[in-house]
Amino acid sequence: MTEQTLTAQMILDTAEDVLRRYGPAKATVVDVARALGVSHGSIYRHFPSKAALRDAVVAAWLHRVVTPLRVVVAAPGPADVKLRAWFDALREIKRAKVLDDPEVFTTYGAIVAETREVVAAHVAELIDQIAAIVAEGIAEGRFAPGDPAALAAAVLDATSRFHNPAHAGEWGTPENDAAFEGVWRLVIAGLRARPD
Amino acid sequence: MTEQTLTAQMILDTAEDVLRRYGPAKATVVDVARALGVSHGSIYRHFPSKAALRDAVVAAWLHRVVTPLRVVVAAPGPADVKLRAWFDALREIKRAKVLDDPEVFTTYGAIVAETREVVAAHVAELIDQIAAIVAEGIAEGRFAPGDPAALAAAVLDATSRFHNPAHAGEWGTPENDAAFEGVWRLVIAGLRARPD
Repeated sequence: MTEQTLTAQMILDTAEDVLRRYGPAKATVVDVARALGVSHGSIYRHFPSKAALRDAVVAAWLHRVVTPLRVVVAAPGPADVKLRAWFDALREIKRAKVLDDPEVFTTYGAIVAETREVVAAHVAELIDQIAAIVAEGIAEGRFAPGDPAALAAAVLDATSRFHNPAHAGEWGTPENDAAFEGVWRLVIAGLRARPD
Repeated sequence: MTEQTLTAQMILDTAEDVLRRYGPAKATVVDVARALGVSHGSIYRHFPSKAALRDAVVAAWLHRVVTPLRVVVAAPGPADVKLRAWFDALREIKRAKVLDDPEVFTTYGAIVAETREVVAAHVAELIDQIAAIVAEGIAEGRFAPGDPAALAAAVLDATSRFHNPAHAGEWGTPENDAAFEGVWRLVIAGLRARPD
């Protein structure tokens, strides 16, 4: 590896690999530089600080969560069926992450707490995606009139138990599936309801 | 303190005090016996194991959460107003616990993970209380027909972000209040909705 051929993507991939193997405490710029066989100065040319590198790793990880969901948002309606497909996809992606590779999930959980702005941007994109589906549902007359962004935030909050990493230990059981069905029925009934 | 005058309540109070002061690792039967000036054998006469004592301490703590809520359930309706009052009381009690005494909350959080049956009984009581209000709402014609217990579990799950200790770090901010309002409107609309 020479400094000329070093790209930001190589640094990100290596940083993620270092995080997976050694955990967040060992994922310093020096460790990543050592793994790539370059000077730490050449890392700083791409990422101005350890925090910037850590934020970029978390952003890349969360990007892999939201990208398949965009496909669901772009698919044809009706909105209620699409919203359910969106949640099924979100739960599947999250469960795969925690069940297939719990150590990575724990590692990311630890650093995610330090990357509030990146996480806030991720939550904002999830709300935007739900809001797009809710707006379609209102336009179709399937959902009651309302502010799609506010309704989307409420839908995401009401389903926290099924996608917020704080609850990851509860996922993947039949009881969790049954609990989701109950919340889903309540949420979709709330979206469909006509105002008093 | 003599073994003759030692009561289960004295042991519970002392165990809770030891937990508060020294944390869960130090809250052994021997520590509690030492604080009371009795032999550990006399503790075992009331609580057959450290686990039994720990479960009793957590049960007493959770009892202080649900007791004031029973008063709300027993008050006159209408059910939608009562359900909101119940959640306001639950959030107030939980926030007071975490904001007034965060160390105790953390301590309890650590041992609650080891007392699954006690916590399950607590959640079952919360669901029973909500189910009683939902059943009233159905009888009053304010809520759509349905199984009160299943609806109650869904309502408790949908509001997890606002009472589950996993989210305690998010409580007590204006944003959290606004988020609760959004979920509340969605949940109450879902309860009121007529089936398709």
